[in-house]
Amino acid sequence: MAMPAGAAEPEADGAAVSAPVQRFSADGARAPEPDWIAAEVPLEVRVGGRPFSVLMRTPGQDEELVRGLFFAEGIIRSAEELLSLRPLPSRGRVRRGDVVDVELARGRPVPRGQRSLYSNSSCGVCGKRTLASLELRGAALRSELRVERRVLGALPAALRSAQAAFQQTGGMHASGLFDAEGRLLALREDVGRHNALDKLVGWALARGRVPLSDCVLGVSGRVSFEIAQKAIAAGLPLIAAVGAPSSLALELCERFGVTLIGFLRADAFNVYSWPERVAR
Amino acid sequence: MAMPAGAAEPEADGAAVSAPVQRFSADGARAPEPDWIAAEVPLEVRVGGRPFSVLMRTPGQDEELVRGLFFAEGIIRSAEELLSLRPLPSRGRVRRGDVVDVELARGRPVPRGQRSLYSNSSCGVCGKRTLASLELRGAALRSELRVERRVLGALPAALRSAQAAFQQTGGMHASGLFDAEGRLLALREDVGRHNALDKLVGWALARGRVPLSDCVLGVSGRVSFEIAQKAIAAGLPLIAAVGAPSSLALELCERFGVTLIGFLRADAFNVYSWPERVAR
Repeated sequence: MAMPAGAAEPEADGAAVSAPVQRFSADGARAPEPDWIAAEVPLEVRVGGRPFSVLMRTPGQDEELVRGLFFAEGIIRSAEELLSLRPLPSRGRVRRGDVVDVELARGRPVPRGQRSLYSNSSCGVCGKRTLASLELRGAALRSELRVERRVLGALPAALRSAQAAFQQTGGMHASGLFDAEGRLLALREDVGRHNALDKLVGWALARGRVPLSDCVLGVSGRVSFEIAQKAIAAGLPLIAAVGAPSSLALELCERFGVTLIGFLRADAFNVYSWPERVAR
Repeated sequence: MAMPAGAAEPEADGAAVSAPVQRFSADGARAPEPDWIAAEVPLEVRVGGRPFSVLMRTPGQDEELVRGLFFAEGIIRSAEELLSLRPLPSRGRVRRGDVVDVELARGRPVPRGQRSLYSNSSCGVCGKRTLASLELRGAALRSELRVERRVLGALPAALRSAQAAFQQTGGMHASGLFDAEGRLLALREDVGRHNALDKLVGWALARGRVPLSDCVLGVSGRVSFEIAQKAIAAGLPLIAAVGAPSSLALELCERFGVTLIGFLRADAFNVYSWPERVAR
């Protein structure tokens, strides 16, 4: 985002990097000024020392990210099954922490090579080669959640005001966890929509809060298959998105009993499935 | 997108599907009305009969999609090396064409299992397990392209007016190919940003137009590593994005001589790298 000249501050947490940017407008071209850009850095994940996957992510909360991804992928079934995540020291151009080694609980099958993935977004389905392997785990959801219309209408502003890295860079997605009264429990940002959700679920897992059957998921962007899949795996009964849903996301939400809301604005929104959870 | 009741039309090309949607607003909840949703359907790609990958894509232009993806991945080096793409007949719930079998030219190495990928977005880097495998092919770009500021300012409107499926669903990304005078050569849409670009490059490959060293790439969203990587592989000298760039996209563009433009609006934009191509 455009920033007043001279306002460059040291980045707090690695979510943004500073770079010179030249602004062109009707008045011509300004001299280059420092601006903040959304950080995207590869993370190599190893399991028991063996390369498993490279994720493109915004640095920070890497343990949450890996925990959430491994849970969504069915590699772990609880936070405890990920025993440790060890950042490896820097080596050449690779910085400390950009390679991590994960230790799984005894008895968890080490994910196989053919499921190895490089994911721009921890898409949760990388590594699958056949349609048959897309089968979803999980049963239809049980949740008594009911949410008032006004609570839903307030989510976009609540999300936006908590999106520190988006405000700085204009290039981040966010996932936010809310209670039924619209109180923000946690928010995570990332250049990848799916990463933001994995981080959020990773946060909840570490606190023993999964399944999140009494929570609302707010997302800044669209809802694709993978977002719906991750939300279902985490037991979330309601997805409220600022963007549009895809047809496959809708199919999943229909099937697993998830309320899917799109085009969420302060004064209006669309409900695509299970409208019963929206109190009139 | 909200649609007047009764306006449901048969979908022309599979890019959108109709579903009942309930609209909530300050006036309460309307009865469900049919609306158009962006189609997202898995495509299983086989190579020589062997499962290679599942892509989440918006149906239509599947051959362009696979051609563009395989080119970006270095699996083929020219359009001719993809000899044929054969849609398999329907089987159970899998519709005709949602599984395709690709035949590669003799001598092209059949992609290996460990690079198999399921990609929500043909992200172009799926299947890679180590940071070392992210090495980019390609040399710094040669292009004499120069583009006027006013031409760039006109791109967002040109993109938007050509985005038929976005106008219908509100849930599609687009990649458009323009000449130096801003004339639209081709536009492709998809639920995945990366798919839209793969389709576009697949289109250009089939016409012998790659490298696209005299063209401008316009994208409706943000520019991440994979978008930059695919553009560089196709020889595109200028990426103009309505959204924000990521830090890694900027690094790639710097290194390979690509002009990177973000936050593109009619009256202003940011130039992140190689501003020489923007005529004052």
